[in-house]
Amino acid sequence: MKFCSACGHPVQLAVPPGDDRPRHFCPACGAVHYENPRVVVGAIAEREDRILLCRRAIEPRLGLWTLPAGYLESGETLAAGAVRETWEEAGARIAELTPYLMFNIAHIGQIYLLFRARLLEEDFAPGRESLEVRLLSEEEIPWGRIAFPVIGETLKTYFRDRRRGAFPFAIGDILPAAAWEAG
Amino acid sequence: MKFCSACGHPVQLAVPPGDDRPRHFCPACGAVHYENPRVVVGAIAEREDRILLCRRAIEPRLGLWTLPAGYLESGETLAAGAVRETWEEAGARIAELTPYLMFNIAHIGQIYLLFRARLLEEDFAPGRESLEVRLLSEEEIPWGRIAFPVIGETLKTYFRDRRRGAFPFAIGDILPAAAWEAG
Repeated sequence: MKFCSACGHPVQLAVPPGDDRPRHFCPACGAVHYENPRVVVGAIAEREDRILLCRRAIEPRLGLWTLPAGYLESGETLAAGAVRETWEEAGARIAELTPYLMFNIAHIGQIYLLFRARLLEEDFAPGRESLEVRLLSEEEIPWGRIAFPVIGETLKTYFRDRRRGAFPFAIGDILPAAAWEAG
Repeated sequence: MKFCSACGHPVQLAVPPGDDRPRHFCPACGAVHYENPRVVVGAIAEREDRILLCRRAIEPRLGLWTLPAGYLESGETLAAGAVRETWEEAGARIAELTPYLMFNIAHIGQIYLLFRARLLEEDFAPGRESLEVRLLSEEEIPWGRIAFPVIGETLKTYFRDRRRGAFPFAIGDILPAAAWEAG
């Protein structure tokens, strides 16, 4: 952010009076521009023992596999966002959504919420952002070609929970890649 | 939003190519400015059969009662945000946070996440945004003077769940006041 979205004046980065961290604020009109984490919603769409994965047609991670997921829109409920993303990316209809896993990805300001859901029919097709969409069993998951750490964690947790026969709601943390490599 | 935060040029509101809803975008530099829902995190801080409530020292709803809660900051985990807000508003330290209730407040673009947590000590004091902070039993809750519908719903659900002896994670919807009155 370089300019005030309210008046167009160049902003400054400093701790506003009464605040405790630097914000972009406008010395001309006084507006303080907060930066908030963004919410990503997605779905594990289940059909018997298989789930729906999409291969990305766009950067980043073009060609790698992911769950249908994307930014929650303003004015939309969490579940409605997951239904919309599943439709947009996989051309698939889901129902009976159950909140399942959340993840903090604090270093990039993202909060993920993944639902489990029932895939209503095997009639699906890649949307504009997907190269292909497939229903995959655990044995077929391309573990070495998953697009994002948060999706890998989700899938690992899901298949572990499925073996245990219970899917408890939980919140996890995704750390920067350097932290993963360090241990 | 009236001006582009990247280049300072006046923005336009229209559906960008390949998109499906109006966005503020900049005809000069091409930046698209997405508006995303904001996440509010808060806590039900428990001490035996009592919980911590704050009376608001600021607008809106000055003088009414609420749970410690506020906007999640960028770079912060959900639980860390709830701990911080409880410290800032109630001068209280909490631990053992369990995710409990989420709420869509779609008409104002907010997502709430309330944790249950253990209040570590009875040493607390109102922060800058609170007039007073009290530990209240169910009988003492000022039901007619709760600041926000989402807080009233949270408290109702909490005491109902407590009587049932289980606190299942759930997502609810808070509708506009007009819908409440009509329904």
